[in-house]
Amino acid sequence: MSVITLLSDFGTADHYVACMKGVILQRAPTAQIVDITHTIQPQDVVHGAFVLRQVFEYFPPGTIHIAVVDPGVGTKRRIMAARYGNQTILAPDNGLMTFIHRDFVLDELRTIENSRLYQNEVSNTFHGRDIFAPVAGHLWQGMLMEKVGPIARQLELLNIDRPKSLERGGLEGQVLYVDHFGNVISNISAADLRGVRAPLERLNVHVGPLRIGNLHTTYSDVKPGEIVAVIGSTGMLEIAVNQGNAASHLRAAPGTIVVVR
Amino acid sequence: MSVITLLSDFGTADHYVACMKGVILQRAPTAQIVDITHTIQPQDVVHGAFVLRQVFEYFPPGTIHIAVVDPGVGTKRRIMAARYGNQTILAPDNGLMTFIHRDFVLDELRTIENSRLYQNEVSNTFHGRDIFAPVAGHLWQGMLMEKVGPIARQLELLNIDRPKSLERGGLEGQVLYVDHFGNVISNISAADLRGVRAPLERLNVHVGPLRIGNLHTTYSDVKPGEIVAVIGSTGMLEIAVNQGNAASHLRAAPGTIVVVR
Amino acid sequence: MSVITLLSDFGTADHYVACMKGVILQRAPTAQIVDITHTIQPQDVVHGAFVLRQVFEYFPPGTIHIAVVDPGVGTKRRIMAARYGNQTILAPDNGLMTFIHRDFVLDELRTIENSRLYQNEVSNTFHGRDIFAPVAGHLWQGMLMEKVGPIARQLELLNIDRPKSLERGGLEGQVLYVDHFGNVISNISAADLRGVRAPLERLNVHVGPLRIGNLHTTYSDVKPGEIVAVIGSTGMLEIAVNQGNAASHLRAAPGTIVVVR
Repeated sequence: MSVITLLSDFGTADHYVACMKGVILQRAPTAQIVDITHTIQPQDVVHGAFVLRQVFEYFPPGTIHIAVVDPGVGTKRRIMAARYGNQTILAPDNGLMTFIHRDFVLDELRTIENSRLYQNEVSNTFHGRDIFAPVAGHLWQGMLMEKVGPIARQLELLNIDRPKSLERGGLEGQVLYVDHFGNVISNISAADLRGVRAPLERLNVHVGPLRIGNLHTTYSDVKPGEIVAVIGSTGMLEIAVNQGNAASHLRAAPGTIVVVR
Repeated sequence: MSVITLLSDFGTADHYVACMKGVILQRAPTAQIVDITHTIQPQDVVHGAFVLRQVFEYFPPGTIHIAVVDPGVGTKRRIMAARYGNQTILAPDNGLMTFIHRDFVLDELRTIENSRLYQNEVSNTFHGRDIFAPVAGHLWQGMLMEKVGPIARQLELLNIDRPKSLERGGLEGQVLYVDHFGNVISNISAADLRGVRAPLERLNVHVGPLRIGNLHTTYSDVKPGEIVAVIGSTGMLEIAVNQGNAASHLRAAPGTIVVVR
Repeated sequence: MSVITLLSDFGTADHYVACMKGVILQRAPTAQIVDITHTIQPQDVVHGAFVLRQVFEYFPPGTIHIAVVDPGVGTKRRIMAARYGNQTILAPDNGLMTFIHRDFVLDELRTIENSRLYQNEVSNTFHGRDIFAPVAGHLWQGMLMEKVGPIARQLELLNIDRPKSLERGGLEGQVLYVDHFGNVISNISAADLRGVRAPLERLNVHVGPLRIGNLHTTYSDVKPGEIVAVIGSTGMLEIAVNQGNAASHLRAAPGTIVVVR
């Protein structure tokens, strides 16, 4: 009864996700299948890598994650099976595991090459259905991971900037992600902030040219419609508008500079 | 194998919903998890309360509903566990149970305060993952409801207008909800209409300044593109356009006046 | 533990889908419920029929599919239960099974008429909840299909054009479907192309007035942003832009002419 999760940029309007679930259920009839999300921006590997990292530690031992944001489908890009702790990730070798790889210990990494595990006919444009789903089904049934293919030594990782220390003190980072509420999540972590030699409550947060103010504890520390900086539920510095949309208010998007002084 | 449902304004593009499911599955590995919807308008408690009411009576005994539309997250607003009949609802104390509370008998009401049931670290901005999900997991495992916290005497309820009787006969109500098809659902129930001293088929329905006409039985009693008033599947007076969008046709939205004469 | 799938135009913002799931779970507490999609364009039976066909063969034996795109709800249109191989489909009699009916053998066809299987109160506007869901629940429990109602002799089918042979050689077809990525899927199959007397790699594909070029193997056979024709994962001729949106690039929509020479 262990869990199989799906993350993709397939959307939910077409047949793609359901095809994968059908194939999974052929081998894993009692699997708990959980959709992480299917509305990753098309081909946006950074977006996918961020969301995958956020959910990872909350899933039970034995979970198999299938992550398909795959602009290189049908080329010679490799498909990887990676084990971090007691969870397994199947993903194209394009950086989708970058954030997980930073924060967790990689225990086993293999290239998926055993075509006997695939669907009988493998299309050139939909490996989610024809390779990822049946391989996940086999692993769910207890097949040893070594059966998927040979040990791999290298994993493609995204080049994600870390926040930089500023000469006059403080940190310069950037926006990593904007969520559905318009909350603006930076690449500056609570740990990064603890490294700044100043009491947290005296830090000043800036997004682009705008001064946000000091760190608060939660959104509703300010009035509805007002802007607030907090350590969000991701453990990162986050800028929000209480009951509003900070990203549109600040015209902030991934890459916008965030400074803490 | 009992059911846990999730209703929220989290959307499905981010990691939020999947984090909650991961936490639930840690304790409730064979739960049937059902998404009610996650596209409640951000912070729109009335919308959430309406949808929760519509699904409530269709779920099996033992179902645990988690409803998180929570503009006050991280403040001192309480989190409630309520039992109506044989179903349990976990929700912030902000009116999300208003429509259920009207129509069903409350058997037990408690404030969730037992922090030993929570995730080890509780964020200030995501109680869905850190409080609601693990408490639901414990209840699913059979933990007695009294363990969540003390009996509560009061529940926050929304002030929702009831239709008024008109002097010259008839009723004045308003639009409560517009669905995905553009069907316009009023706060006038079939029971309210039976209270009007006139045969149902002679009643005349008006939305704002526009006369809709008499009550019909179903959408396709009129030609495609024509407008029609029916008792909808919610048991409420509903105005639709057969195979079209009544809300945009009538420029109707929650609060628009609906009159029956 | 067999599978029940749901396909509809109900969207996921309202209570409709969750009501159906609640009713199903009353009778089928351990069912694997899979959402095919709920964002079929409102009342677009062709769209629904296409998606249903695409997923059909990937689901395990015993699967029960509920397809509700139902502009005629509440009229005398019939509701059908059809068995193709070892899977069952419940759908209004409006053409939703057209593509499956073309490609699979119909083993049993019945009209659903046994009102003892329905919810106690049947609304005129939401048969998904009041008829389809409880009937599926009964079938999931093992009820014989003959209990749903009498054998039916006819099934409503859509009139979908097949590609035509051109006088000077080649085929003229049309766009059938545009997916979430903007990939343009035609009604010309790989088998149709094999019928053209020319090597596949010498065929030339045109969409409307525009020449696309020869057939390739996968999207990334061309540079990002360039257009490419492939046999897609549906087995049909498909026109895509590598990492882009072909439909908006070509202004193509269902019905646009596609020619292969």
